[in-house]
Amino acid sequence: MLENKNTKLTPINTFGEFELINHLTKNFTIKNSSSILGIGDDGCVIDSHKKLSVISTDLLVEGVHFDLSYVPLKHLGYKSVVVNLSDLYSMNAKPNQITVSIAVSNRFPVEALEDFYDGIKAACTKYNVDLVGGDTTSSTKGMIISITAIGIIDKKKLCKRSGAKNNDLLVVTGDLGGAYAGLQVLEREKSVFKVNPNVQPDLDSYTYSIGKQLKPEARKDVFELLESLNIIPNAMIDISDGLSSETLHLCKSSKLGCHIYEQKIPIDTEVISICEEFKFNPTTAALNGGEDYELLMAISQSDYDKVKNHPYLTIIGYFTNKETGAKLINGLNEQIDLTAQGWNPISKKI
Amino acid sequence: MLENKNTKLTPINTFGEFELINHLTKNFTIKNSSSILGIGDDGCVIDSHKKLSVISTDLLVEGVHFDLSYVPLKHLGYKSVVVNLSDLYSMNAKPNQITVSIAVSNRFPVEALEDFYDGIKAACTKYNVDLVGGDTTSSTKGMIISITAIGIIDKKKLCKRSGAKNNDLLVVTGDLGGAYAGLQVLEREKSVFKVNPNVQPDLDSYTYSIGKQLKPEARKDVFELLESLNIIPNAMIDISDGLSSETLHLCKSSKLGCHIYEQKIPIDTEVISICEEFKFNPTTAALNGGEDYELLMAISQSDYDKVKNHPYLTIIGYFTNKETGAKLINGLNEQIDLTAQGWNPISKKI
Repeated sequence: MLENKNTKLTPINTFGEFELINHLTKNFTIKNSSSILGIGDDGCVIDSHKKLSVISTDLLVEGVHFDLSYVPLKHLGYKSVVVNLSDLYSMNAKPNQITVSIAVSNRFPVEALEDFYDGIKAACTKYNVDLVGGDTTSSTKGMIISITAIGIIDKKKLCKRSGAKNNDLLVVTGDLGGAYAGLQVLEREKSVFKVNPNVQPDLDSYTYSIGKQLKPEARKDVFELLESLNIIPNAMIDISDGLSSETLHLCKSSKLGCHIYEQKIPIDTEVISICEEFKFNPTTAALNGGEDYELLMAISQSDYDKVKNHPYLTIIGYFTNKETGAKLINGLNEQIDLTAQGWNPISKKI
Repeated sequence: MLENKNTKLTPINTFGEFELINHLTKNFTIKNSSSILGIGDDGCVIDSHKKLSVISTDLLVEGVHFDLSYVPLKHLGYKSVVVNLSDLYSMNAKPNQITVSIAVSNRFPVEALEDFYDGIKAACTKYNVDLVGGDTTSSTKGMIISITAIGIIDKKKLCKRSGAKNNDLLVVTGDLGGAYAGLQVLEREKSVFKVNPNVQPDLDSYTYSIGKQLKPEARKDVFELLESLNIIPNAMIDISDGLSSETLHLCKSSKLGCHIYEQKIPIDTEVISICEEFKFNPTTAALNGGEDYELLMAISQSDYDKVKNHPYLTIIGYFTNKETGAKLINGLNEQIDLTAQGWNPISKKI
């Protein structure tokens, strides 16, 4: 889990609570003019300049949301930030600040937390957000991460889940199922490693999918693209729990049904190979796999020409009236009910 | 830990993740006009009306920050909110919204979480804040709570830790040491209970201190008082880690020293009795006990007449230049260095 396994490690209790925060965040500088006051007071202060503030928060628990036996801490820090930024982009908001709180048990040396914060810093730099607050404390077991992301938006551009209209195009960014395929590969390598720690895995043919799992990106580029194309989606959501679950969220909030064409769902060829190797259906990976952090949006038919051939965007179906229900249309033109079998930590793990 | 121990209990996996959030938050209504969008999208949306946003966040871990063997879940919910609101009041900001995320293991039935959210709701009602977001997920062990509070402030009224001036009055609200004294009583009762579960404790003579520990209040009244007295403190902090630690924060951030007069430190008579019973020094409880959530502020000498005899406020000393250091002056007029021995989960528990 650590970047450098050879150095002499420093127990956390070398630092007090306040010194540890200072130590871990000393290389973070404030870059956004809206960040009025950062770490060091009881709260951070943000100037929204007459815009609305959008706030998203996530709680990640070791053993439930991540497995440190194959997730490097630097990647974990990066991903923890990215998943929150993705929530803001999915509302068409521009992220500007994050707060990061962590609780760790005594199995984590200071260097482990430094790796984690290196990942946080890399994400802050890439997405141009400021770390403005947070907490470090101890846990009785494992690592717990809580991140809050703060962004701004013009009232007119806000994308809620509830704004989709009948006949709107259902558009998805990038491709789906990759993060789930990558997870399968990593889980297999973990099992192999347990049996024989000397086996060196050859992961070259899985790099795209493993990357989607370990180091996903939020679609800042799509946020900027929508602005440049002058498109405001009627509704938007990010795909954290799988296409099926997120589509149902949009349908439920907007009181609509939809048709999704199975053959339109974008899936990378590497993901299809992994699905063949692991004997599961690529469509299932896209529908129920989750963690792709692509954006799913409802776009007016009048914007069809702007999106139809864009390499970042795929039209996979359209919204219908509520009575039609949410349907997947397969290659045989059969209509199958969409059901939410997304990744659900409550029902799966408890 | 549960309010009603006799009802038939419902396992959490009766609900999916989204249904559980909906179930727990169905009685929360939005009351503040600044809460544009609450639970149900990827983020909440807040309109700061040209003011600055102030944001504070806390991560609380069972076994580190709270012990459910004597903390009822309803009180825990209430206190979790209050400690975050206290952070905002300490910056002279008005809290308007909170987000609440929890992770729980399968030992918690739905009714336990309902009790917790009842406490959250009671705090929302008392302090007039809206619950606008959050997360429920599972943990491998125990309960983890992450709360973010969002407030607003006029730029001119913002109180940072760094604003104290040489000669400013050091003023504290309420009285100190109560939460620590209450904790000692509760810890003793827990030990007695372990030996003989049939002993009914008589806690009548400890009610004030136990209340300070289990159900602290944030000083909304003082926030309003400062406004009505037309006082803007030069610096302010809330007392979560003890008077000593917080005073040192103000001194360090403001690059000053201070004199605190031991005999001026306000301590309730019940707290003094408990200190006698448990054989510890009341001043130590006030300096290092923590969790009192009173406010500590630097107030200009020109405001002396406004604060000198106010029942909510006590002048306990004044700021000096940095070279003087931070000193406690005892009854023999001896100067003792203030040291931070505040409650520190990193160094204590790891």
